[in-house]
Amino acid sequence: MGKVNLRGNHSKEKKTEFSLVRVKSTWKRKLAKKVNKDAVDCVSPAKMYEIITVKDTSWTVVSPIVFTYKVTETRDLLDPNNDTLLLGHITDPQQLEEIKDSNKPLKRFVVVDQEVYEIYGPKLTEYFESNNVLYKVLALPTTEENKSMEVAMTILEEVNNFSLDRRTEPIIAIGGGVCLDIVGLAASLYRRRTPYIRVPTTLLSYIDASVGAKTGVNFANCKNKLGAYIPPTAVFLDLSFIQTLPRRHICNGLAEMLKMALMKHRGLFELLENHGRMLLDTKFQDDKGVFGQSGLQAASQATRIAITTMLEELAPNLWEDDLNRLVDFGHLISPALEMKVLPSLLHGEAVNIDMCYMVYVSQETGLLTVEEKQRIVSCMVGLELPVWHEACTMELIQKSMQDRLKHSGGMVRMPLPVGLGKADIFNNTPYEILHRAYEKWCDELSVSSDSNRDP
Amino acid sequence: MGKVNLRGNHSKEKKTEFSLVRVKSTWKRKLAKKVNKDAVDCVSPAKMYEIITVKDTSWTVVSPIVFTYKVTETRDLLDPNNDTLLLGHITDPQQLEEIKDSNKPLKRFVVVDQEVYEIYGPKLTEYFESNNVLYKVLALPTTEENKSMEVAMTILEEVNNFSLDRRTEPIIAIGGGVCLDIVGLAASLYRRRTPYIRVPTTLLSYIDASVGAKTGVNFANCKNKLGAYIPPTAVFLDLSFIQTLPRRHICNGLAEMLKMALMKHRGLFELLENHGRMLLDTKFQDDKGVFGQSGLQAASQATRIAITTMLEELAPNLWEDDLNRLVDFGHLISPALEMKVLPSLLHGEAVNIDMCYMVYVSQETGLLTVEEKQRIVSCMVGLELPVWHEACTMELIQKSMQDRLKHSGGMVRMPLPVGLGKADIFNNTPYEILHRAYEKWCDELSVSSDSNRDP
Repeated sequence: MGKVNLRGNHSKEKKTEFSLVRVKSTWKRKLAKKVNKDAVDCVSPAKMYEIITVKDTSWTVVSPIVFTYKVTETRDLLDPNNDTLLLGHITDPQQLEEIKDSNKPLKRFVVVDQEVYEIYGPKLTEYFESNNVLYKVLALPTTEENKSMEVAMTILEEVNNFSLDRRTEPIIAIGGGVCLDIVGLAASLYRRRTPYIRVPTTLLSYIDASVGAKTGVNFANCKNKLGAYIPPTAVFLDLSFIQTLPRRHICNGLAEMLKMALMKHRGLFELLENHGRMLLDTKFQDDKGVFGQSGLQAASQATRIAITTMLEELAPNLWEDDLNRLVDFGHLISPALEMKVLPSLLHGEAVNIDMCYMVYVSQETGLLTVEEKQRIVSCMVGLELPVWHEACTMELIQKSMQDRLKHSGGMVRMPLPVGLGKADIFNNTPYEILHRAYEKWCDELSVSSDSNRDP
Repeated sequence: MGKVNLRGNHSKEKKTEFSLVRVKSTWKRKLAKKVNKDAVDCVSPAKMYEIITVKDTSWTVVSPIVFTYKVTETRDLLDPNNDTLLLGHITDPQQLEEIKDSNKPLKRFVVVDQEVYEIYGPKLTEYFESNNVLYKVLALPTTEENKSMEVAMTILEEVNNFSLDRRTEPIIAIGGGVCLDIVGLAASLYRRRTPYIRVPTTLLSYIDASVGAKTGVNFANCKNKLGAYIPPTAVFLDLSFIQTLPRRHICNGLAEMLKMALMKHRGLFELLENHGRMLLDTKFQDDKGVFGQSGLQAASQATRIAITTMLEELAPNLWEDDLNRLVDFGHLISPALEMKVLPSLLHGEAVNIDMCYMVYVSQETGLLTVEEKQRIVSCMVGLELPVWHEACTMELIQKSMQDRLKHSGGMVRMPLPVGLGKADIFNNTPYEILHRAYEKWCDELSVSSDSNRDP
């Protein structure tokens, strides 16, 4: 029988912790307490536990996977002399040198939103041509209605025909949040994980969809019901894409920016309060003629704070295992509202209506003063965001809270501002407060809002 | 302008490392060198780096996600008194107590292979009925031909109709590797990650597919081209399912078991050499009448060693980032061979043919003695596995090596045995050796193999 002892010992439970140690090409489990880390080649951060009982034997594997991704704010991404889009994701200097020295043309598969392609198509093609890249650009209408597994499969067929090397040739997505989400999912599925790069072209995706790990498509009439938590290998942010956005879509992005301001950063709130209108008018561009350097500076400051505050909340909770999330502010009632009135409200607009109601809840609870509430509402109006909607009824609010309870482990986990730029999570807000806040919200904002939206 | 300074400092590059610290509900980045771990509530294992240059600003997020899963060998999984299938995945004793004390019926969605359902359907239904479970059993033909995204979507539609709670109600997959792989992928996609449980019913999936993180479906004529690396929350192994397998499928599983023996465990090799035929005859069952306790013991020993050696290699490399993998033994030529002669060879059979050729390569390289080679081939024949195939030509071998080079970062990374139960990875085996080994392999085994398979 060689080294195997067929007579097991079934008399008692035995729990053993093992480390995993590499000896040449072989991993071996070793009693954790006996491993001298200095004396071996390589000890894995993974662990293995064995529990033997009379009834059964089990092994528990604990294995950490480290995700690393880079978010870069840059300029002139499509300038043929800027190699960020092609090489900016490579962090190893030696690897970068080798690629730059090699004569082998680079190969890139690009998915770009149809509307973005109509504006930037020629520039994009020229960029790849002048950099001698073997490329395939797939332009697709990436709308909310097309955000489906079928479209992801279409992308995958094209990726497969292009036969890229899944380790060294990242898939590039250029577009708004829908485009980034579908391509991210497709890439995550291809060969169980192909690196991808996000290039957001809307203000909303610039500060929101692009900086996290989430990918997804809609399914069974639900937003992002299928997806993955695989971050891109890199995100390249270029504010110049924003200049071709319609004004309403700038407001749409400002709503998510305001969310981060209200939850975490008084400075950003005051920036939006004082300079929001200017940012909207200049579309976050460096308009020296009108505002001199301060236009650019306010735009960069606002986006940088929005991104870093977002990253602060996402990095420690990349897979959303912690259900207490400040970034959920504005996202308790808005999903149902957005679906109910589809397509009349943009995502940021629905989020703002949700946030505005919640500000009333905060004030009613005594977490915000009347003056603070007023400042927030005025800021929202200044950013040309809707602050009330007739479809946001008390019934819808209650139903949303019930859904939240169900999907949030039995607690409502409601983020609320507790002053300007500060927030906390609340679980026991009484119905009377929700109702009184609703009444006051309608009293104060339904008329102005009506006259605002339907003059 | 509040706290925001609009005048940036653009004169030099600045790199800063941040830790992420939780204060109440808010995560804040703090200079890493200034964080006193003892003085704060919670420091995340995630990190954030900021690099500001004249040209651009970038943030790098480094965030570890810890995967934990449990593999349990048990008995009588479908005995209504055994609660492993319903509760065995729960590791928190308090949570377990709460569920046991609660009167709320459990809810489980189960996907089971059609053929398995025909044999175990009534037992399964009875199990859920007597445990007062709200259940839905979806029986599907999970064959290699059906291993597609379409079938995964069918499962997802049913999951969605069943409206399970994605945090507390894991999806259960019962079947062979194909079933476990499709269901694993569907679960990983649902709400970006729904826990799932694997119950393998073939010997091959018992020791192979069930213990790792990989899920997948075929796409564009390629095996597992789409998938994810999301481990199950738990795996429940019950050898009694194996007793209804056809003899050829026991051999199929023995091939992957032999792989682990050749790569890592001389004791397992000797066990298969001495008791393999008995394990095959008894189908890994406790047949006291014939072999007494030793039948059970040999079966448990063999499966336990196969599983632990497999876990040793998988746990430190759950997402296959390290391309040097001993578990790839037998998997360099076999994928092409399997597809070429589909459906005439089972997976383990193709793997064994690949392994047998590689044993000749090892011997030709001087890594194995002639006697060791002979023992391995005899063991394979004893396990009723094919050791040669006419479709495995030198041309196919060369093409497989070229594909391997392409997908393995430019190196062939060929695992080869270097003695019995020991192995290493080789990159520079000369063509002459591959060719001489091929000639000798054909000379010695083509006739016997022919007479063996086609008498």
